[in-house]
Amino acid sequence: AAITGAPAVHAAKRVRWRMATSWPKALDTIYGGAQTVADRVKAMSGGRFEIIPYAGGELVGGLEVFDAVSRGTVEAGHTASYYYIGKHPAFQFDTTVPFGLNYRQQNAWLYNGGGLELMRKLYAEFNIINFPAGNTGVQMGGWFRREVNTVDDLRGLKMRIPGFGGKVMARLGVTVQVLAGGDIYPALERGVIDATEWVGPYDDEKLGFYKVAKYYYYPGWWEPAPTLSVYVNTKAWEGLPKEYQEMLVTACAQANLDMQVDYDAKNPAALKRLLDKGVQLRPYSKEILAAAKREADGLLEELAGKDARFKEILENWNKFRADSNRWFSTAELGFGEFLFRQG
Amino acid sequence: AAITGAPAVHAAKRVRWRMATSWPKALDTIYGGAQTVADRVKAMSGGRFEIIPYAGGELVGGLEVFDAVSRGTVEAGHTASYYYIGKHPAFQFDTTVPFGLNYRQQNAWLYNGGGLELMRKLYAEFNIINFPAGNTGVQMGGWFRREVNTVDDLRGLKMRIPGFGGKVMARLGVTVQVLAGGDIYPALERGVIDATEWVGPYDDEKLGFYKVAKYYYYPGWWEPAPTLSVYVNTKAWEGLPKEYQEMLVTACAQANLDMQVDYDAKNPAALKRLLDKGVQLRPYSKEILAAAKREADGLLEELAGKDARFKEILENWNKFRADSNRWFSTAELGFGEFLFRQG
Repeated sequence: AAITGAPAVHAAKRVRWRMATSWPKALDTIYGGAQTVADRVKAMSGGRFEIIPYAGGELVGGLEVFDAVSRGTVEAGHTASYYYIGKHPAFQFDTTVPFGLNYRQQNAWLYNGGGLELMRKLYAEFNIINFPAGNTGVQMGGWFRREVNTVDDLRGLKMRIPGFGGKVMARLGVTVQVLAGGDIYPALERGVIDATEWVGPYDDEKLGFYKVAKYYYYPGWWEPAPTLSVYVNTKAWEGLPKEYQEMLVTACAQANLDMQVDYDAKNPAALKRLLDKGVQLRPYSKEILAAAKREADGLLEELAGKDARFKEILENWNKFRADSNRWFSTAELGFGEFLFRQG
Repeated sequence: AAITGAPAVHAAKRVRWRMATSWPKALDTIYGGAQTVADRVKAMSGGRFEIIPYAGGELVGGLEVFDAVSRGTVEAGHTASYYYIGKHPAFQFDTTVPFGLNYRQQNAWLYNGGGLELMRKLYAEFNIINFPAGNTGVQMGGWFRREVNTVDDLRGLKMRIPGFGGKVMARLGVTVQVLAGGDIYPALERGVIDATEWVGPYDDEKLGFYKVAKYYYYPGWWEPAPTLSVYVNTKAWEGLPKEYQEMLVTACAQANLDMQVDYDAKNPAALKRLLDKGVQLRPYSKEILAAAKREADGLLEELAGKDARFKEILENWNKFRADSNRWFSTAELGFGEFLFRQG
C-alpha cells in the first residue's frame, strides 16, 4: 500500500518572501541558518514557497530587522533577539543569558518548558511571531593581550563586549566598549582595547585576533547558547497557506539543529589551527567565574524589580534552570568530565 | 510582495505508508520520534502524505523492523541500528558506541563528519536508506542493589545489559544477562540479577527499579547518545514524490531535535521524584571508568581487525572523536563544570 488512488488536484499558491538578516554572508555559519530555512521550504514546496535571505544592510541595517518585520517592510527576518533589549529587556531570554542555559537546556526551555509561549506573548505586541532557528553553543570567553587571573586583573581593562555580558563586566570594573565586527581588530592591534570577545574558534579565526592577542579564554559564560531567531510578520504569517506555515515551522527546527551541527563540525579543526599558531588557551579562574555569576544574578534581579514581565519570565526560567542543572550534573557532566580531556 | 500570481494547479499524489517501530507506545519519548515524523509530514503535505506508525509487535516484532523494511514488507521503520549488529557490527556506529560521542558530537559526525555517508553505503546493501530521527542523550549507568566502587566489585555481578555495553562489562568479569523490558523488574526483585540498566530517570521511573535497587549510577558510558533511526525501503524512497522526500528529510531532523528536547524537559522532574523516594545517586569511580574505557577500545580494535568495513568507519570516527573531544573540553565542559553543580 504505497500510492493510493489517482493524483488529487491541489491548488498551491506561489509565495515569495524576503528575509532580512543581521549577518554578512561571510559569517557562513550564522547566515547559514537563514539559508537553511530558505532551502528547506523551497525544496519541500517544490519551489512554490520561496524565501530570499538578504545580508545585513542589503534591505535594512543588520540591527533593524526587528523593526522591518514588525512594520511589514519585509515578511521575515533572521536575527538575534538580544539586539532588541532596548524594546524590552526580556528579549534577552529568547537568545541567551549570562550563566544561563546551554544548547540542550535552551531548546528544552523554549520548546517544552514554557519559554516559547512566554516569548511569543511579548513578540505578539510587536506584530512578530518568532521561531528558534540556530545556535552557536557555548561561546569562547574572548581574546586577551595579557593574562587575567583575578577580579583585580579585570579592573580598568578595556574590553569589547556588548549586551548583558558587557553589563556584567562593567560591574566587575571593566571599561566596556561596543565595536562592530570590522572595527575590532585594528582597535586590539593598536591597544585601544585590551581584549575582545566574538564567537568561537571558527568565526574568530577569520577576524585574525590571534595575531595580536594570544590568550584565548573560556568559557564565554555570558553566551552559553545564543539562539538565533526567525521573525515573521504576524499578518504575513496569517496570510500564509497552512501547509507552508507547517513547512516553515519544520524548516526552522532543522535550522536550529543544523547550525549547531555546523559549528560542532567546524570548531574542532579551527581550534587545532589556532593552537598550531601559538594561541594559549586559558580557563577563567573560579574567582572570576564566581564573581561574574554574582553580578549576573544581581543584574537579573534588578531588572525583575523594575519590570513585571521580566520578573514573570525570570521566575519560570530560574525554576527550569535549577532542575535542569541538577539533571545535567549527573550523566552528561560525568561523561564529559571523564572523556573530553582524554582526546 | 507576498503572494504572486494566480494559484498554480499542482497534482499531489496521495501516499500512505506504514512505519513499523521497535517500541511500545508506553515509551512515549522514543515512540514519540516516530509520531513526530508522521505528524510533520502529514501537516506539511496537507494530509496527502501519511505515515502510520505501529508499536513493536503490531505489524512485526520489535527487533524485526530491519528485515521488514529491507524486504519491503513495510515502507518505513523507526528503530535503533545497534539491534542489528548481527547483520554487520558497524551498525553500532549509527546508534552509539561505548565512550563514544555525545548528542552534539554524534549529530556533527553523522551530518557533517562523513558518518551518515559511511553508514548509508552499508545500509544500501540491505535496500534501506537511514535517517537520524531521535536521541536520548547520555543515558544513566543503571540500578544496583549494592554499591560498586572497584573493578573487583563488578566481578561475578549479574547485570542485565545488552549490546556493546554488555560485551565490555563481560570483559570486566560481569555475568551479563539480556532480558526484555518487562522481565527486568521481577528478576531484579528476586535477586536473579544484581543490577540493570535501562535509559534515564523518566523511562526508568516507569519500570519501578527504584523500589528494589536503590543505587543509581552515572554516566551510562556505553550509551552516550543513542541515535534512533528512521529506515525507508530503497524502492519506496525512489517512488516517493520529490517534495515528500524533502518533507521526510526535514521531519526526521525535527524528530532528532524534538526527542532530545522531550527527554531534557522530562528527565529533570523525574530525577527529582526519584531522589525524593530515597534513590542514592552514585558516579562510577575513575577506576571503573578507566578500566571500561580500555576494554571498550580493545573491543573496537578487535572488531576492526576482523572486518575492513568496520575498520574504515572506526578510523574516520576515531579521528573525529579526538578533535571533537579537544574542542568540547574547553567552552562546553568549562561552562558545565562551573555551573551545573550550583543548581
